[in-house]
Amino acid sequence: MGYTIQLSVTGEFDEVVDVTITLLQDEGFGVLCDIDVQETLKEKLGEEFQQYRILGACNPALAHEGLNEEIELGALLPCNVLVYETVDGDVVVSAVDPQQLVGIADNEALDSIATEVHDRFERTLSTVNDELQSSSEA
Amino acid sequence: MGYTIQLSVTGEFDEVVDVTITLLQDEGFGVLCDIDVQETLKEKLGEEFQQYRILGACNPALAHEGLNEEIELGALLPCNVLVYETVDGDVVVSAVDPQQLVGIADNEALDSIATEVHDRFERTLSTVNDELQSSSEA
Repeated sequence: MGYTIQLSVTGEFDEVVDVTITLLQDEGFGVLCDIDVQETLKEKLGEEFQQYRILGACNPALAHEGLNEEIELGALLPCNVLVYETVDGDVVVSAVDPQQLVGIADNEALDSIATEVHDRFERTLSTVNDELQSSSEA
Repeated sequence: MGYTIQLSVTGEFDEVVDVTITLLQDEGFGVLCDIDVQETLKEKLGEEFQQYRILGACNPALAHEGLNEEIELGALLPCNVLVYETVDGDVVVSAVDPQQLVGIADNEALDSIATEVHDRFERTLSTVNDELQSSSEA
């Protein structure tokens, strides 16, 4: 299970989602895809599932650079950031590790782009707790 | 570049997209995410790019099974199927190889699910040309 960068937070699920999206935007990522897994599994299968969102984050400039290096790279885009509930009531924010994801492509020209996305995801996650705290104090 | 299953077809771009979506549905995949890369790069960066769509395909039952095995699996979902133009005017349909993608997770319990998705993607791609031909004759 070493393909994500994870953070466990204490907060209200929807608020964690909102804060995560805002912080991703601050790091230059648009959320191009937002899948509500709980809703999808309920609707398609009638199954109960914990709250779980898949946010597909994309930095257009880095994506453009990557696609110019390798046209098939879109198969691995956007990079997902998960927000989900755990059984003990915490909320986890978990970003795919772009270095591992892009590692599948085995193309050295993509390494610096993956590192840049990785660093931005780390900064995003490192500020989620501060942002949750400041928004709850506001 | 060995992380996709590719097919080059001769056809009109939008029609290839439509046929691909229909065939994915026939194999039990919903398209939960549809990113128009050309439009996104134009809008966000003012850059010209070839026609390029990222279709995020998800089979709810297989996704549910996978998430029950490994909660972080959402970081690798949905599985993308690309449709894009090439410089010589062909259209490529390219599905991420789920065995390679899920291989990052290094969890044997996911192997059979990845194989099932792989087989369904192969069937989808193997019928794109027939479907394009029959729809052009209709």
